[in-house]
Amino acid sequence: MPALRADARRNYARLLAVAEEAIAAHGPDASLEQIARTAGVGSATLRRHFPNRHALLEAVFRERVGMLCARARDLTTGPDTRGALLEWLNAVTADAATIRGLAIALTRDQAAGPDVAHEHCASAQLTEAGDPLVRRAANDGALAPGVTITDLLTLITGIALATEHHTDPAAEAHRLLGLAMAGVSPRPN
Amino acid sequence: MPALRADARRNYARLLAVAEEAIAAHGPDASLEQIARTAGVGSATLRRHFPNRHALLEAVFRERVGMLCARARDLTTGPDTRGALLEWLNAVTADAATIRGLAIALTRDQAAGPDVAHEHCASAQLTEAGDPLVRRAANDGALAPGVTITDLLTLITGIALATEHHTDPAAEAHRLLGLAMAGVSPRPN
Repeated sequence: MPALRADARRNYARLLAVAEEAIAAHGPDASLEQIARTAGVGSATLRRHFPNRHALLEAVFRERVGMLCARARDLTTGPDTRGALLEWLNAVTADAATIRGLAIALTRDQAAGPDVAHEHCASAQLTEAGDPLVRRAANDGALAPGVTITDLLTLITGIALATEHHTDPAAEAHRLLGLAMAGVSPRPN
Repeated sequence: MPALRADARRNYARLLAVAEEAIAAHGPDASLEQIARTAGVGSATLRRHFPNRHALLEAVFRERVGMLCARARDLTTGPDTRGALLEWLNAVTADAATIRGLAIALTRDQAAGPDVAHEHCASAQLTEAGDPLVRRAANDGALAPGVTITDLLTLITGIALATEHHTDPAAEAHRLLGLAMAGVSPRPN
């Protein structure tokens, strides 16, 4: 029954989108009932798509990381290599706290060893996806010598960690990233 | 007996110096016996100066933060305001992981509320001490507009957090601080 399948797909997509917003706002403990309600589905439908919280968090985690990787690929074609890299780094910064919160919750759930930890997995995917953006910007002379995608992801992780208790973490993280990219103290006097 | 007092002072200073090195290398759980042995005193002498681990960690914590504040004051007089600020930020970066480890251990020990936490206390002292260095550099046009001492300490905290599991955390932290100060991507293309 294709009609039903299309309906199920729409429910899945809507649940995922609502869950992403709820988790970004309230963290991995966001209310599942509230997510189902906001998505306009019953909790039986929620459970059919995501049998438990872990399954939902896992789906949101994969979606967020996957979107950032797709965004990197989209941005690899334009002529402004510096602008493309900055745009992508800002997108990663905006999601970094949410992705890290999900990674911690998921890894804790399944008592995974460090080599299969979700944080490591996200970092590996983002490293691979962002590397072409870094290389293109470097080729254009738009980066300080020797800067790697690992440097940039480490910096973003640090900024996300250091700003998580600020009154407006996202705004503060973007501000600090912007300062670090342009240079906190760019001109020797 | 002035001779004895001088001897006690020397023992105290030596124990503190040895403890600082041991804690920087092994964290707040560094062996007290080893510290006494390296300092060339018996464990009774160690206990006379520092009745328990908490007392020793507290002394090292105050010493590290105090040294950084004193360094800031020393650096406030020279003509190279940008160089002075960079030198101080590098010194703070070098100690950030140790100070944070101590702050966490001390706060955990006494189940202190967040408003009396040692990390907050260190941050407040470093903010006050570093502020004149930031203002002098800003007056010389050596800082991006609007940069505050709080921005810089947040950035350093983030860099320390994000590099703590690197193979050489100190080297990586210095590298990232240098990149952020000079600009990861300083020139628009």
